[in-house]
Amino acid sequence: MTYSKKPLVGIIMGSSSDSRIMKGAAEIFDEFKIKHEDQIISAHRTPSRLAEYAQHAEKMGFKVIIAGAGGAAHLPGMIASHTIIPVIGVPILVYNDKHPKKTDAAKFSAFGGLDSLLSITEMPSGSPVVSVGVNKAGNAGIYAMKILANEFPELKNKLKQHKSDQHKSVLKESEQLKKQGLSKFTKTKFK
Amino acid sequence: MTYSKKPLVGIIMGSSSDSRIMKGAAEIFDEFKIKHEDQIISAHRTPSRLAEYAQHAEKMGFKVIIAGAGGAAHLPGMIASHTIIPVIGVPILVYNDKHPKKTDAAKFSAFGGLDSLLSITEMPSGSPVVSVGVNKAGNAGIYAMKILANEFPELKNKLKQHKSDQHKSVLKESEQLKKQGLSKFTKTKFK
Amino acid sequence: MTYSKKPLVGIIMGSSSDSRIMKGAAEIFDEFKIKHEDQIISAHRTPSRLAEYAQHAEKMGFKVIIAGAGGAAHLPGMIASHTIIPVIGVPILVYNDKHPKKTDAAKFSAFGGLDSLLSITEMPSGSPVVSVGVNKAGNAGIYAMKILANEFPELKNKLKQHKSDQHKSVLKESEQLKKQGLSKFTKTKFK
Amino acid sequence: MTYSKKPLVGIIMGSSSDSRIMKGAAEIFDEFKIKHEDQIISAHRTPSRLAEYAQHAEKMGFKVIIAGAGGAAHLPGMIASHTIIPVIGVPILVYNDKHPKKTDAAKFSAFGGLDSLLSITEMPSGSPVVSVGVNKAGNAGIYAMKILANEFPELKNKLKQHKSDQHKSVLKESEQLKKQGLSKFTKTKFK
Amino acid sequence: MTYSKKPLVGIIMGSSSDSRIMKGAAEIFDEFKIKHEDQIISAHRTPSRLAEYAQHAEKMGFKVIIAGAGGAAHLPGMIASHTIIPVIGVPILVYNDKHPKKTDAAKFSAFGGLDSLLSITEMPSGSPVVSVGVNKAGNAGIYAMKILANEFPELKNKLKQHKSDQHKSVLKESEQLKKQGLSKFTKTKFK
Amino acid sequence: MTYSKKPLVGIIMGSSSDSRIMKGAAEIFDEFKIKHEDQIISAHRTPSRLAEYAQHAEKMGFKVIIAGAGGAAHLPGMIASHTIIPVIGVPILVYNDKHPKKTDAAKFSAFGGLDSLLSITEMPSGSPVVSVGVNKAGNAGIYAMKILANEFPELKNKLKQHKSDQHKSVLKESEQLKKQGLSKFTKTKFK
Amino acid sequence: MTYSKKPLVGIIMGSSSDSRIMKGAAEIFDEFKIKHEDQIISAHRTPSRLAEYAQHAEKMGFKVIIAGAGGAAHLPGMIASHTIIPVIGVPILVYNDKHPKKTDAAKFSAFGGLDSLLSITEMPSGSPVVSVGVNKAGNAGIYAMKILANEFPELKNKLKQHKSDQHKSVLKESEQLKKQGLSKFTKTKFK
Amino acid sequence: MTYSKKPLVGIIMGSSSDSRIMKGAAEIFDEFKIKHEDQIISAHRTPSRLAEYAQHAEKMGFKVIIAGAGGAAHLPGMIASHTIIPVIGVPILVYNDKHPKKTDAAKFSAFGGLDSLLSITEMPSGSPVVSVGVNKAGNAGIYAMKILANEFPELKNKLKQHKSDQHKSVLKESEQLKKQGLSKFTKTKFK
Repeated sequence: MTYSKKPLVGIIMGSSSDSRIMKGAAEIFDEFKIKHEDQIISAHRTPSRLAEYAQHAEKMGFKVIIAGAGGAAHLPGMIASHTIIPVIGVPILVYNDKHPKKTDAAKFSAFGGLDSLLSITEMPSGSPVVSVGVNKAGNAGIYAMKILANEFPELKNKLKQHKSDQHKSVLKESEQLKKQGLSKFTKTKFK
Repeated sequence: MTYSKKPLVGIIMGSSSDSRIMKGAAEIFDEFKIKHEDQIISAHRTPSRLAEYAQHAEKMGFKVIIAGAGGAAHLPGMIASHTIIPVIGVPILVYNDKHPKKTDAAKFSAFGGLDSLLSITEMPSGSPVVSVGVNKAGNAGIYAMKILANEFPELKNKLKQHKSDQHKSVLKESEQLKKQGLSKFTKTKFK
Repeated sequence: MTYSKKPLVGIIMGSSSDSRIMKGAAEIFDEFKIKHEDQIISAHRTPSRLAEYAQHAEKMGFKVIIAGAGGAAHLPGMIASHTIIPVIGVPILVYNDKHPKKTDAAKFSAFGGLDSLLSITEMPSGSPVVSVGVNKAGNAGIYAMKILANEFPELKNKLKQHKSDQHKSVLKESEQLKKQGLSKFTKTKFK
Repeated sequence: MTYSKKPLVGIIMGSSSDSRIMKGAAEIFDEFKIKHEDQIISAHRTPSRLAEYAQHAEKMGFKVIIAGAGGAAHLPGMIASHTIIPVIGVPILVYNDKHPKKTDAAKFSAFGGLDSLLSITEMPSGSPVVSVGVNKAGNAGIYAMKILANEFPELKNKLKQHKSDQHKSVLKESEQLKKQGLSKFTKTKFK
Repeated sequence: MTYSKKPLVGIIMGSSSDSRIMKGAAEIFDEFKIKHEDQIISAHRTPSRLAEYAQHAEKMGFKVIIAGAGGAAHLPGMIASHTIIPVIGVPILVYNDKHPKKTDAAKFSAFGGLDSLLSITEMPSGSPVVSVGVNKAGNAGIYAMKILANEFPELKNKLKQHKSDQHKSVLKESEQLKKQGLSKFTKTKFK
Repeated sequence: MTYSKKPLVGIIMGSSSDSRIMKGAAEIFDEFKIKHEDQIISAHRTPSRLAEYAQHAEKMGFKVIIAGAGGAAHLPGMIASHTIIPVIGVPILVYNDKHPKKTDAAKFSAFGGLDSLLSITEMPSGSPVVSVGVNKAGNAGIYAMKILANEFPELKNKLKQHKSDQHKSVLKESEQLKKQGLSKFTKTKFK
Repeated sequence: MTYSKKPLVGIIMGSSSDSRIMKGAAEIFDEFKIKHEDQIISAHRTPSRLAEYAQHAEKMGFKVIIAGAGGAAHLPGMIASHTIIPVIGVPILVYNDKHPKKTDAAKFSAFGGLDSLLSITEMPSGSPVVSVGVNKAGNAGIYAMKILANEFPELKNKLKQHKSDQHKSVLKESEQLKKQGLSKFTKTKFK
Repeated sequence: MTYSKKPLVGIIMGSSSDSRIMKGAAEIFDEFKIKHEDQIISAHRTPSRLAEYAQHAEKMGFKVIIAGAGGAAHLPGMIASHTIIPVIGVPILVYNDKHPKKTDAAKFSAFGGLDSLLSITEMPSGSPVVSVGVNKAGNAGIYAMKILANEFPELKNKLKQHKSDQHKSVLKESEQLKKQGLSKFTKTKFK
């Protein structure tokens, strides 16, 4: 079996607005040619879909579920309650969407994502969800690949290549910085 | 008796600037055709009006009071001290209005609404106020309807319809996302 | 109809250990002779019971549901997603129960109840839960009575009597303090 | 006029349990022979007494009011709303009094006094209350004396003497520490 | 003696950039015709001026010192250590001034003013400073007037007039809101 | 291949004192008969062992690494930097071990585990670690089993049985509570 | 030996984007003619370079290492684990770089730099790193000079001159403020 | 010159009660035979001693000053303002010493040391203090040794030996844990 034939990962999120963050996970999978199925499952607006989706995910043979949610962020924990498939939570920094003037500054979250992070991690004993950092959907994607790599050895090589590429990229920048010194480097880099 | 003849809900707020957030509650009531009376009662600038308003509210037969306030946010608790009508508090993210340049970025609250949330919820034993999330005046409106629905059965149906509409709306978006995948969906949705 | 014939309130909690806090609500109802039904509904260990309980509550004609939970505290929000009955959340300060030596000091929560408070209040627009203060189950009980008093006028009188008793009790203590002065008063009171 | 003939300071607190902290202010006044009147004024259980007390305080000619409160801590701000007498707030670390086993460890506040501190300081523009540190009733007492010293010059000397005594006391301990070194000093001091 | 002949209040701040916030206090004094002397005293860049300024303030006969500072905010506490004149601290929300692009958004404080608030209030027993809310220099001005009013009765009347004006102003806005309702009011007010 | 022949999981921790928390993971594995290898790897005291352990883990064929650490908690992230094996972090509430009197109360962490939680989750893009809740080593154990169950189908059944047992256990307690009511239940349960 | 012949300080950072903050340290060294070597060492993307860099730094004879990092911020602690050269950490406020619209407002950190500050300071006993304030790379530069001044007496004089210049600069601004008063000063200064 | 002839380090603290924490630094110096002078310098009770001590320290030729303080914690920053000797701050978790019953549990700090940590690190640009973790006086001692080792090469060897001893000690414990497994190890270790 090869990992690319059918979706191995389900990506879900609580709201269509979360898709702007969650696409970070999709981009990783697309880059590594891992099929994923994407849905919106709202724990609060479509509660009956929680059990349905869990059954769907098990039937589809998903190996991992990535669940992003902001604010109270119940989605990752509630999906995990319905299935034994490992769930990776992505806490999303929610924006105050009721502010009169819809500028960027006005849409910040009241709690900087801490509300979502704690709602995802502080699950009771016996019902684990794990969390990546706030808005770090891309990291959830890479972590999912690490889980998949246990079964699909070619992913191991791709992950090692990814690590090696990162190493080289930083090294190259470091050499440039060392040569130019900080003042010149920042002028060149962020002009 | 039908719920639409006279105001069943009093909406109050600590300052006229809070009206930009509190209209979120009014919009819910207007949508569901529930009459409400709106006032500004400042716990600190018009303290003598606290008792007056409480008497007015009881005389008017209000079933719920929605009280929004930012910063120290004493209004919800102080009104609750004067009446047995249930009070729903709305913590409001206050803006630092003394900043030299009045850009959006400069108007953020120092404490992200946590000050108001705790000032509303951490009432002493015996004097309850309940709180919705920061700036969630709309949710206070829906919660007030849930309370009213105990007495006005036609509101029960409207609330159920509202839930059903939410469900269908999310489902529709989810189907679109599932079909398009995250990358295409976000491009279409947030272009 | 009188309010005392059948249970008007459902009290639920996420774990049997929460019963130590939640009995604060029961004590209020018992004092005011309001019947209540008490259950343990774990959002994570018994997810299928969420919808079941919501249907049960509507069939029973509950007017209010009081839901207590600690840590990630998904229960109040998840029950609210399944019903239009108003839900009052009680954030519970969770104890680290895996500490080697089970002294009281070792069982404190990592986040002081803030995790639960935010998980209860920061619900998305359209799905409100309201919250009392951390561990304030008694206040949830009194708030529920305020909601019930809209329909059961005799409860209004009881609540007014309760307010009046509180007033007199504080007044009496204040007079004692004024007469004795702080130093003597604290010696007498907390010997 | 001498400052010791009639009470110049009103000490109030939200609950009799706060008296254990607030006596710290009384002790300062007793030491400096400044008369004070002590009362319990609950913003939430005796709201009608807020205006009454403010009038009483103005009639009594109080120069300062010290107001201690925990949790939502509305008392200092509400008294300040009713009078032009300067109010010093004392945020009090509230204890969770509903814990099953009433050990010391179980009575910690959920928010470490931050709730009270913010509820006292974050008053809206135009309605100031000032705050000392959490539980620092003694500091409120000394600050009140600084205000009184503007009118009563003999208090200036007493405050200067107090500063001088503190200086000497620390100097003496420092000399002992310098001579003994840290290891021996702590053994001697905290055996 | 009348309060307007010579400066009764010293306003100090840790940096010239704080003047943008601290002018809020000056505006109050200018409105009420109270003379004040304004200086920059940096606890860290001009430490020798702390004692000098304290002596200057006592010699000038200042009745109150208002001290604003951001970040570590040692100024209020250090001045209070050198004098028995009451010091009102103003915690200032510091901006990260080293950010590459000097937009408003980039200049937010790391800790929202909490660092300054705690550095001002959490003084050790025996050395009190009191604090108003973050950036609330205007409130420090009004509080200083309350202290001065103990000695200058005409200020009492002005403060009462100020309270009365606030009351009327809010009442007028409330009547407009009540008449128009929230939706129309916000449209009129914030177009 | 069966999952019980050789260790599939590496459990590591930063200090021997962390073993009191981390044994929660071991207990899960012992219950489910999953072999694990336990080591102490200090990122700061044995930095050279980070790369060594990563190589060892890959050579041993570990499918998951569970890494517990308190305070700065660099261990999970540093191990993840050296390997493509998925790492589950366990933030540990650190105790102030330098307090004079070594009572339980004196050993609380300064930051309640928040320091460790953020140090584990807020990894840069490209280098993911996931985290369970503070001190929730048992949940890390169950999550590891969910990952292993992708390859070892008999674990799927065991996990489903575990879920079913939890469900039944809560249901039984709920029935007892419903029958007895809160007051009697707590008396019976926590006498 | 004079301090200007070869690099005495190594400046490292976790990512090229940190160079915008870290150049604050370089500017101090350039002003005082202290040679420094600048590199990018990512604890997570180039873990093998940690030990390498430590050896390089010791071989180069660096007297101080300044290490800046954001988010999980493991770099300062990990370098300190590999060398006995004193390491000064600079916590960097990380920006959420995955936000759809890359405005300034959208790039704020979720935790305001608190995550990085704690990850740098809360090192275990025996492995110290020290930290300056969030984004305060310039202060790290001056602190490094204080360490160097122990060996290079001419730096002592330069640091004293720097202190003296600061003093004079503040004094001059203070005199201007005192003369103009706050209202005029801010108008002149921040027009 | 050898490092052991006269005191190279000044240890100061704001109060005699801080000596219980600060002796952690002294123990390190005593172990490594580095002379130190210990004093109590209260920024608030003995402000005139700040400049005096700074002069004393420069005259004594101290190479490093370690300054511990709790609460508002102005001492480290104020000493640093008066001297160019590098200052290492130790934030100390302050205990609420005014609690009625002086049990351990009652003496916790309101802010867990965060107040002190921020007051030490968030110094303005140009006036650096560096900080170790809360209560980590021992780490301040080791860091001071790293600074001294720049001038006293024999200290380099001692620090390397210290690192090597730590490594071996952890390795030994790890081998024991690996052999026994977690369950047996914790039973043996913490019986």
